[in-house]
Amino acid sequence: MIRHIESKDNKYVKLAKSLSRKKYREKLSMFCAEGKRLVSEALSVGAVEFVILSESFFEKKSDFSDENVLTLVVSDAVFKDICDTENSQGVFAAVRISQIPQNLDLARFVLILDGVSEPGNMGTIIRSAEALGVDIIYTTDGCVDVYNPKTVRATMGSIFRMPIDRGKSRAELLEVLKERGFTVCASSLSAEKSISDISDCGKIALVIGSEAWGISSEIEAGADILFKIPMSGAAESLNASVAAGIAMYELGRKAL
Amino acid sequence: MIRHIESKDNKYVKLAKSLSRKKYREKLSMFCAEGKRLVSEALSVGAVEFVILSESFFEKKSDFSDENVLTLVVSDAVFKDICDTENSQGVFAAVRISQIPQNLDLARFVLILDGVSEPGNMGTIIRSAEALGVDIIYTTDGCVDVYNPKTVRATMGSIFRMPIDRGKSRAELLEVLKERGFTVCASSLSAEKSISDISDCGKIALVIGSEAWGISSEIEAGADILFKIPMSGAAESLNASVAAGIAMYELGRKAL
Repeated sequence: MIRHIESKDNKYVKLAKSLSRKKYREKLSMFCAEGKRLVSEALSVGAVEFVILSESFFEKKSDFSDENVLTLVVSDAVFKDICDTENSQGVFAAVRISQIPQNLDLARFVLILDGVSEPGNMGTIIRSAEALGVDIIYTTDGCVDVYNPKTVRATMGSIFRMPIDRGKSRAELLEVLKERGFTVCASSLSAEKSISDISDCGKIALVIGSEAWGISSEIEAGADILFKIPMSGAAESLNASVAAGIAMYELGRKAL
Repeated sequence: MIRHIESKDNKYVKLAKSLSRKKYREKLSMFCAEGKRLVSEALSVGAVEFVILSESFFEKKSDFSDENVLTLVVSDAVFKDICDTENSQGVFAAVRISQIPQNLDLARFVLILDGVSEPGNMGTIIRSAEALGVDIIYTTDGCVDVYNPKTVRATMGSIFRMPIDRGKSRAELLEVLKERGFTVCASSLSAEKSISDISDCGKIALVIGSEAWGISSEIEAGADILFKIPMSGAAESLNASVAAGIAMYELGRKAL
């Protein structure tokens, strides 16, 4: 269903704009996806509440979107007012935040993000997690919102498919995972053990800390193994999402 | 030596601005570093031609910079006109492009970037290369300029320390490296072999291709080993700098 909207004060336009803020994402239980590719993926998993297209985009591709989903066409000026990014290509979708089914009993490799704060890193890590076989992602408080528009963009669509649990405290996480037999392996720059020396762990819970401060003291105290990625040269460290990618690659194949 | 400059038409101001363009970087054999941390690193390796500070920055930190390096203080408006980034903190340096010594006879692990085109990826890869023990980086034509301001920023200072050779054709590279006994291992999404199955290679030349098209046909034909990083899930691929980081981590420890 396609509707043409003129006014900036239209309720869908206002709702769309509000999704750039976490407060409204939580309240409405929705987030936004921007760009042709991301919106197509959101449509394909059936999670879209409504789509907004710019007039210029609609003129070129009037067949974009799904006939069962409400699609609004707005002037380019109104569209620009909605979207956080220059890369949206004139395509926006309001997407429902839905619980993607997670089954901890079947999981063998889970990821705990303990204070990851940069939206692009968060998104890239979620993307890598899907590609590298992570079963469930847990985020602790102190993490940037996984539905931040920059994060969503960097996931390249993995946000629509990865089970993400945002509700557990660190203490709960450690308890639940250890109870199920997970070995908690946390990345720490001050660790002695090299990640390549970790072996025979069974099920693994990998913890990645904050870009600035690393893992929290609570996780450090509760982890079974603290490891580092061996580094040479004067470079202080790897980029956080690169380090997380290497850790997922290395431990993902060791998790049984 | 500190000089206060009022005019936008000052020759240093004009020169500084021109460094945002590759043409002038090549002509002047200089590039720019922005931000306190990067400029400090450039000063510490003695590669700085001159420094420009904004008035606001100078008021807070009049002792920044090196007494042997020409330091210009400009109004905030003039400064803003020079700098490509909002993150420069009011600190800019023009840095000499200098050949960092490279010794291929002692190298055991080199990296060939075959058409990496996104500036942020290029910078992150250079940073990872230093941390993960790469001895020399080669770039082919089709790569974004390693002295692009966004690239320089993403290297977090590795650009001042990594030996980078930008002058060789693909044919030359393959010839020179094979002559010296390097095994050329190239990342390819269509490869059968998993990177984790590569073993006993001796010296390794790792090739990372373009984000959009992968490695060139010339490298594909000339490589000794084509490999992929095993992936699961619906994610099409890893982010290019994450994939490069994993490949450097895995092959860097196998290179002898």
